[in-house]
Amino acid sequence: MTLRTPAVVLLFILGAAAALVGDHGHIVTGTTEYLMPAHRVPFAWSSPIWFPVLVGGATVALAELRLHLPAVRTTVTLRQGLAGVAAVEGIYALTALTHGFAAGPATVAIVALTVITWCVLGDRFAVVCGIVAAVVGPALEALLVAVGLFRYAPGAHQVFGTPPWLPALYFAFGVVTALLGEIAASMTTRRAESTAPVT
Amino acid sequence: MTLRTPAVVLLFILGAAAALVGDHGHIVTGTTEYLMPAHRVPFAWSSPIWFPVLVGGATVALAELRLHLPAVRTTVTLRQGLAGVAAVEGIYALTALTHGFAAGPATVAIVALTVITWCVLGDRFAVVCGIVAAVVGPALEALLVAVGLFRYAPGAHQVFGTPPWLPALYFAFGVVTALLGEIAASMTTRRAESTAPVT
Amino acid sequence: MTLRTPAVVLLFILGAAAALVGDHGHIVTGTTEYLMPAHRVPFAWSSPIWFPVLVGGATVALAELRLHLPAVRTTVTLRQGLAGVAAVEGIYALTALTHGFAAGPATVAIVALTVITWCVLGDRFAVVCGIVAAVVGPALEALLVAVGLFRYAPGAHQVFGTPPWLPALYFAFGVVTALLGEIAASMTTRRAESTAPVT
Repeated sequence: MTLRTPAVVLLFILGAAAALVGDHGHIVTGTTEYLMPAHRVPFAWSSPIWFPVLVGGATVALAELRLHLPAVRTTVTLRQGLAGVAAVEGIYALTALTHGFAAGPATVAIVALTVITWCVLGDRFAVVCGIVAAVVGPALEALLVAVGLFRYAPGAHQVFGTPPWLPALYFAFGVVTALLGEIAASMTTRRAESTAPVT
Repeated sequence: MTLRTPAVVLLFILGAAAALVGDHGHIVTGTTEYLMPAHRVPFAWSSPIWFPVLVGGATVALAELRLHLPAVRTTVTLRQGLAGVAAVEGIYALTALTHGFAAGPATVAIVALTVITWCVLGDRFAVVCGIVAAVVGPALEALLVAVGLFRYAPGAHQVFGTPPWLPALYFAFGVVTALLGEIAASMTTRRAESTAPVT
Repeated sequence: MTLRTPAVVLLFILGAAAALVGDHGHIVTGTTEYLMPAHRVPFAWSSPIWFPVLVGGATVALAELRLHLPAVRTTVTLRQGLAGVAAVEGIYALTALTHGFAAGPATVAIVALTVITWCVLGDRFAVVCGIVAAVVGPALEALLVAVGLFRYAPGAHQVFGTPPWLPALYFAFGVVTALLGEIAASMTTRRAESTAPVT
């Protein structure tokens, strides 16, 4: 494990909190609905407790993954990380706000924002984290839909019961989480340097 | 007063014009409604005349405030200022367009755009101007609502009759106005230098 | 002709494909409707075949135009080009998604995004390409509306049957196409240099 414990805790909490905020938007707009079996576990706000836990864990895993890929950037800033978190939460909110709109242009708008997020904040290895997130996330959601834990409202162009914009949202999540991993690593390095004994 | 007279006039006109455009969006979408007592004064487009006057004055005051805070940036450009004004007007328009949408994700989207605006264009002292605007603006609006001059359409999560995204809109306004103050100051300096006698 | 043949082909295909995606959004939302005479020619997806051909040709022409204007930038990157294409497609999708919304704030939001696109990606000569596109494009559309090939759904503030945001969408298209021309030129130059014999 490359991430230090405080970074793991912070990334887990950040991912879980962002998941709760985003999922609330999906629930109140009717974009998604948790079905009966999901209600057998406690809920946090609008989500069954395992949802923020899964997203928090995925945040830590993707940030860690980035640090095992080449060319980890050391000049990334907290400000970029904040912008990245805002971008993902904004895209997440947009997927809720466009519920009930034509799936085609809504998906184009969401993909466009995801592409811009990568162009501004990502490097080529963030693409790896983005693709991992865009494959594993929707696959897991399709599984949860298949076993009847929740469902998306019916819509055009769905794949295994999931909406066409879902991989784009996960891709943006993966790109920004890779950035957060780099920020955590470079802050740890800087702190280590500033407390190292003079040799 | 640090701002020169031409800058004061331009900032006042810019703020007043931006206010008229933004307020028009709120009126035509039914986000806000001016009540009977407000109609005792002349209207400019969709707004009673005091509304653009107040926003124009606030624009001057916040730009001036920034110049009394430390570390005034001298490398900010007119292009950044233009992007900032577009960002605030775009966020303002979004608050009108999302009228009638679920308050939760609409507020998340608006806050996300405000955070990104600060990340791209603001410095730490712009946060001061943002917070001043985000406190005074909504407080004054709550007062005007309380005395019956206007009202927001009913919605979720309102505070003293004002919507939950209002502080974010004012924060973005404060951040960009701080930037405009810096641009005005640095252009004045450059002009003074270019017309100074060679010593 | 300054653009090399591969660049011409790529720009034509990119413009045509982007046009098909954007036009599909307009059709499925009812923003536009092709009328009977338009159906006398084959359709590609939601568009009569001449629509992507015209936009592909305009993409080539505007990129070429940029290279005949001064101060062609050589440091622009593929990443900026990708962000630009995403920005135009995102704005295009937004014009479809805001169909049925109040024309005032929808137009403000679209204009704001166009201004930000220029601020981030354009130079002063991109403005020339933007203005050419913003004049010729809507004029041609007004002609096609006048002869009965297609129509926009009725809306406020229309000019010769075209919506108020149309020049902004074309302006963004012109700005980004100018950037794509610069990218194509600088990639050609770099390739020529890397394959030149050592002298």
